[in-house]
Amino acid sequence: MLTIYHYWFCPFSRKVRIALQEKGVEFEMKLEMTWQRRPEFLARNPAGNVPVLVNDDPQQTICGAYAIAEYIDEKYAEPGLIGETAEERAETRRLVEWFDDKFHREVTSLIVNEKVMKSFLKRGTPEAANIRYAGQNIKHHLKYIEYLTDRRNWLAGNDFTFADISAAAHLSCVDYLGDVPWQHFEKAKDWYARVKSRPSFKAILQDKIAGLAPSAHYRNLDF
Amino acid sequence: MLTIYHYWFCPFSRKVRIALQEKGVEFEMKLEMTWQRRPEFLARNPAGNVPVLVNDDPQQTICGAYAIAEYIDEKYAEPGLIGETAEERAETRRLVEWFDDKFHREVTSLIVNEKVMKSFLKRGTPEAANIRYAGQNIKHHLKYIEYLTDRRNWLAGNDFTFADISAAAHLSCVDYLGDVPWQHFEKAKDWYARVKSRPSFKAILQDKIAGLAPSAHYRNLDF
Repeated sequence: MLTIYHYWFCPFSRKVRIALQEKGVEFEMKLEMTWQRRPEFLARNPAGNVPVLVNDDPQQTICGAYAIAEYIDEKYAEPGLIGETAEERAETRRLVEWFDDKFHREVTSLIVNEKVMKSFLKRGTPEAANIRYAGQNIKHHLKYIEYLTDRRNWLAGNDFTFADISAAAHLSCVDYLGDVPWQHFEKAKDWYARVKSRPSFKAILQDKIAGLAPSAHYRNLDF
Repeated sequence: MLTIYHYWFCPFSRKVRIALQEKGVEFEMKLEMTWQRRPEFLARNPAGNVPVLVNDDPQQTICGAYAIAEYIDEKYAEPGLIGETAEERAETRRLVEWFDDKFHREVTSLIVNEKVMKSFLKRGTPEAANIRYAGQNIKHHLKYIEYLTDRRNWLAGNDFTFADISAAAHLSCVDYLGDVPWQHFEKAKDWYARVKSRPSFKAILQDKIAGLAPSAHYRNLDF
């Protein structure tokens, strides 16, 4: 059995959950509040972050979204989530880096930190300037999603890949908080509606974080 | 022929240069000052960052350190720089993320931004607090390198991999500026001396940035 150490607002944990569902691989989830820095968890992953994937047969611990995503795609080959040709694989990975690095820095980390972590960890009050900045940035990303889906079936090409998974994992965190301006980006919304309707995304839409209800449309497939 | 768009203090560009040398693949380098946001470059890579690898036969553009590293290892298989088994591959990638994400955030980006980019781009004066913070952080990373090399030949295991390449790429940027406290980390220094003596690292040690001389020991194999 596989176990994923995760926390709810971690887009990288969401990405791994979605990918395993796409592959049809069963797993358990363990909530890890990384800020508690539990010695047992640090022994598993000295970087102290999630996701961490533990396989109990053969016993193996895989740390970090990069290693886990590639591990999953190598170990559970069908359906492939990176692509077939060198060109397809490079394009998927380019977009994974786009969302996991750029989108994360410019949007997810700002919004989640200001609106969730600060109050949860009692680390001061949200800075409106950061939230506004993220709110400007997300528009460019939604526009880029529209640029891509105007030309392709999914973000990286014909097939659903880790590019879609990464993008949707980040957007789902922001959307839980109601901070995605879907009304101005109908075509990005169409793409996200298609992601939402996949069985692999079902559990993500059922996430409910104690003390923080999701936005009104978070779960709706028709939003 | 391959062309790498790079800039001198970009650890991710250095990583790609070293990896291609390890593989024995010839390439040209083009200096790209990403902050100029050249339209021709943005057309190649809308994320606007380096490294970008352009292969002219077959014509293909690969953007970003993640996509390029995996592309290189898939296309030029020998010598493998990720590992053979699932366990080895996960360990290499865990450490690549460690250096490309954690070390970059906690050390390289702070030092390079404060000591190089701010004055080069005339964006204010260096903040001593950031440099001090990076100076504290780097000690933990050097200690971790010692922990690993106490137990292994190279960082991820028996073989030289992208883990060593990423770590050395970041450290070489910081070392150019003389900000690695090698004197307190003899065993990390031994590991870095072994990296420095590899033919693949030779060009890195010859880097000379206009107007900014490297630290006295930057080029010495015996430092």
